[in-house]
Amino acid sequence: MKNCIIAQSGGPTTAINASIAGVLIENQTNNYFNNVYGALNGITGILNHRIINLTDKVAADNNFISKLKITPAMYLGSCRYKLPNLDNSPDTYQTIFSYFEQLEIDTFFYVGGNDSMDTVLKLSEYAKQINSPVKVLGIPKTIDNDLCHTDHTPGYGSAAKYIATSLLEIAHDTCIYPLQSVTVVEIMGRDAGWLTAASALARNKYNVAPHLIYLPERDFDLDQCIADTKELLKSNHAVVIAISEGLHDKDGNYISASGTEIDHFGHCKLSGAGKSLEQALNNVLDTKVRSVELSVLQRAAAHCASLCDLDESVSLGQQAVCLSQENKSGYMATIERLSDQPYQTKISSCNIEVIANEVKQVPDSYINAQGNNITQEFIDYALPLIQGEPDIPFENGIPSYLDISHLV
Amino acid sequence: MKNCIIAQSGGPTTAINASIAGVLIENQTNNYFNNVYGALNGITGILNHRIINLTDKVAADNNFISKLKITPAMYLGSCRYKLPNLDNSPDTYQTIFSYFEQLEIDTFFYVGGNDSMDTVLKLSEYAKQINSPVKVLGIPKTIDNDLCHTDHTPGYGSAAKYIATSLLEIAHDTCIYPLQSVTVVEIMGRDAGWLTAASALARNKYNVAPHLIYLPERDFDLDQCIADTKELLKSNHAVVIAISEGLHDKDGNYISASGTEIDHFGHCKLSGAGKSLEQALNNVLDTKVRSVELSVLQRAAAHCASLCDLDESVSLGQQAVCLSQENKSGYMATIERLSDQPYQTKISSCNIEVIANEVKQVPDSYINAQGNNITQEFIDYALPLIQGEPDIPFENGIPSYLDISHLV
Repeated sequence: MKNCIIAQSGGPTTAINASIAGVLIENQTNNYFNNVYGALNGITGILNHRIINLTDKVAADNNFISKLKITPAMYLGSCRYKLPNLDNSPDTYQTIFSYFEQLEIDTFFYVGGNDSMDTVLKLSEYAKQINSPVKVLGIPKTIDNDLCHTDHTPGYGSAAKYIATSLLEIAHDTCIYPLQSVTVVEIMGRDAGWLTAASALARNKYNVAPHLIYLPERDFDLDQCIADTKELLKSNHAVVIAISEGLHDKDGNYISASGTEIDHFGHCKLSGAGKSLEQALNNVLDTKVRSVELSVLQRAAAHCASLCDLDESVSLGQQAVCLSQENKSGYMATIERLSDQPYQTKISSCNIEVIANEVKQVPDSYINAQGNNITQEFIDYALPLIQGEPDIPFENGIPSYLDISHLV
Repeated sequence: MKNCIIAQSGGPTTAINASIAGVLIENQTNNYFNNVYGALNGITGILNHRIINLTDKVAADNNFISKLKITPAMYLGSCRYKLPNLDNSPDTYQTIFSYFEQLEIDTFFYVGGNDSMDTVLKLSEYAKQINSPVKVLGIPKTIDNDLCHTDHTPGYGSAAKYIATSLLEIAHDTCIYPLQSVTVVEIMGRDAGWLTAASALARNKYNVAPHLIYLPERDFDLDQCIADTKELLKSNHAVVIAISEGLHDKDGNYISASGTEIDHFGHCKLSGAGKSLEQALNNVLDTKVRSVELSVLQRAAAHCASLCDLDESVSLGQQAVCLSQENKSGYMATIERLSDQPYQTKISSCNIEVIANEVKQVPDSYINAQGNNITQEFIDYALPLIQGEPDIPFENGIPSYLDISHLV
C-alpha cells in the first residue's frame, strides 16, 4: 500500500483546486498511489487527523475532477498555521510523521504560498533527519504572484483576468456621463503590485483606463498623484486610478491607516487605501470622486477564471506526482518561461530551500520612470496568463461548483 | 423619409443596450424607419444636437448588433437631466421638437427608469398638445427593478445573476478557515431591496449563505441583527449577511450616515452601510468581521449577464417599434408574467401616465416575518430571470465589447 496526502494553505485562489485535479489526473494514468488523501484545513488537518479520501470521491463521481478544476477557494480548506521550529516543538513533527506512517503515506503534497513552502522546507528536512521515506513536495499557488524561482504562480492569471475584465467594465460604467469623474479602484497586494499592474490588461483599442497605476514597489506621493490626476482631467472626462491596497508613503506609512473616531454606529474605524485616496482627492478636486474595492472576489471569482491559469495549475499538480516518482523531496514544482510570443513554458522544479520565505516584487523594468504606470514589458509578461475561458457549468443560473459542506 | 431617434438615461445596466439592439433588429425586418439615430447622453443629446446614426453603424459592421446586445452601460451615454415642466421652460420643448422636425423624426424612444419615464410622459403630452405627429415611447431598464406595471425590468436579471454568482463565490471564500467569521455584503438599492433579495439565489444544495438578508423595505434594528448573528454563530462557522445600501432605522436614519473626523489623509468621511455594519458587529462580537461592497460591478459586469434578461431587453426594443407602428404614443413596453414554472411571459405595453414617478418595492409576501430573510415566493419570482449565459466573445483575455470612444 502506497498512499499520498495533499493539503492546501494560505489565502484562496480560483486555481488552487486545479492542482489537486492534476495530482488525481496523473495518478489515474499511472496508479502510483493506492489512495490520494486530502487533509482538511492544511497541516492542521494532519495534526488533528481530519482527512477525506479523494480517490473515493473520484470513483463516486465522474465529474469530480472536472468540477474540482473550476471550483474556487480551497476544496480542502485552509489554515494560517506556521509550523514551529523543530527545536521548539519536536512533538509536532513526531505527530505528523507518526500519522503519515499510520496512513502509509509515501508523499505529502502541500499547495500554497510562501508560508506553505516554509512548511515544506521544514518537513522535508525533518524527514531526511529521521531517515523517513516520506517525500515532501510543494505546489505553488498565490494570487499575489510573489513566489520566487517560478515564472508565475497559479491563481495569479485568473485574478488578473478578473481584474482586467472588471476594470474594462468599470471603464464602460465611468464613461456614460458627460460630467468629469475620478474612480479609484483598490486592488489586493500588500507587498507586491502584480495584481494592480494587471489592471493595465483592461486597455484595448478604445479603452486607455486605468489612466494611472500605483504599486507598492514605489513610495506613494499624494501630491504627485493629485498633480497627475489634475493633468489628466484636462483631457479626460473620466479618470480611473488603480492602486494597491499596500500603498505607503516614503516613511512606510500605509495610506489605508485607520482613523480614530467612531460614531454611535461604529463608523469610520476602518478605511482602505481606495477610500482614503478617494477622500484625499475629494478634498482638493472639484470633481466627483468615488472608489471601488475589488475585495475577495478577485481571488474567488472562478466564473471569470483564466483557462491558461487552470491548465498550468493542473500541470503543476501532475509535475508534483512526477517529482515523487523521481524520488525527490524538498522540491517545489515550477513554471519556466521559454518565450512570450508565442507563449511557451516548461514545467520544472526547484529546491525548496531557495524559495521559502522569499518575496518576488514587480521588477523595476515593469514600472515606468514616474512610478504611475506600467511598461510594455509587463504587458508582454502578463498577457499570456489571462488567455482562455474555461467552460463553467451553470445550474439554476449560478455556477455549479463542488459541494464544500465538509468544510462547514 | 421617416426616422426615429433613441436615447438612454439614468444609471447603467448590462442589458440597456440590448433594447437598442431590439429596435435595430425589428427595423432590419420591416424597414419601418429609414434611419435609427442615437442621441448622446440622453435627452441632452437632443437639446445639444449630439447624435450618431446607428443605421450606418449596422451597415458598417456585421457584428454591431450582436456586440451591442452584450456591451455594458449606455452605448449612447446617459444623463441625469430632469426635463423641466412645460410652464417653466416652453423653450426646451420647442427646441426638442424643432430638432425632431429637422431630423424627420417619427418616433422618439427613451430607455430608462423612473426619471426617464417622466420625460416620456411630458414629451408625449406636449406632442399631443401641439398636434405633433411625433410618437414618444418608453423602454424600461433599471437594475433596481422598481418600475411599476411591468413584471420586472431589463438589467435586473443580469445584476441578480452577478450578485448570486458573487455571493456563492464569497461563500466558498468564507468557508476555508476553521475560525468563525462574519462577512457583510453591501448590495445596491436605496429604496427597494430587489437586488439584495437576489443574494438568496446563491443558495444551492450545499450553500445556505447568505444566512441573513436585510432589505430597506423594513426598518433595520441593529440590536436584533446582532442577536440574529450571535444565534447563527452558535451553529455556523462562517456567517454571511446581505444588506441593502439603503438600510435605515425606524426613524429613517441611514446606517451609512457619515462620520465627521478626517485625518491628515482625509480618512473616514465616507462610510457605506456595509462598513458601518462591519464596525458595529466588530464592536460586540469576538469574531472576525469583514465587509464586501459589490459596488458598480453589479450593474456593469456584462461578462456575467443573464441571457434571459438580454433576450427580454431585445424583445422590449422590438415591442417599442411595434407600438410605434400601431401609432401609439405615451406608452412604455412592458413584460407580463403568465407563469413561474414553466416561465412564460407576454410582451405588452402600458400607458405611461400610470408608470412615471412611481416606485415598486419588494412586496410583504416576499419578506419573512422576522424581516431578516426572503420567502420562497421571491425565489419563484426571481429564479427564471437569471437563467442562461450569453456567449461573450473574448479578445486578448478580456471581453470584446463595442468601442465607446465616442463618449469620451
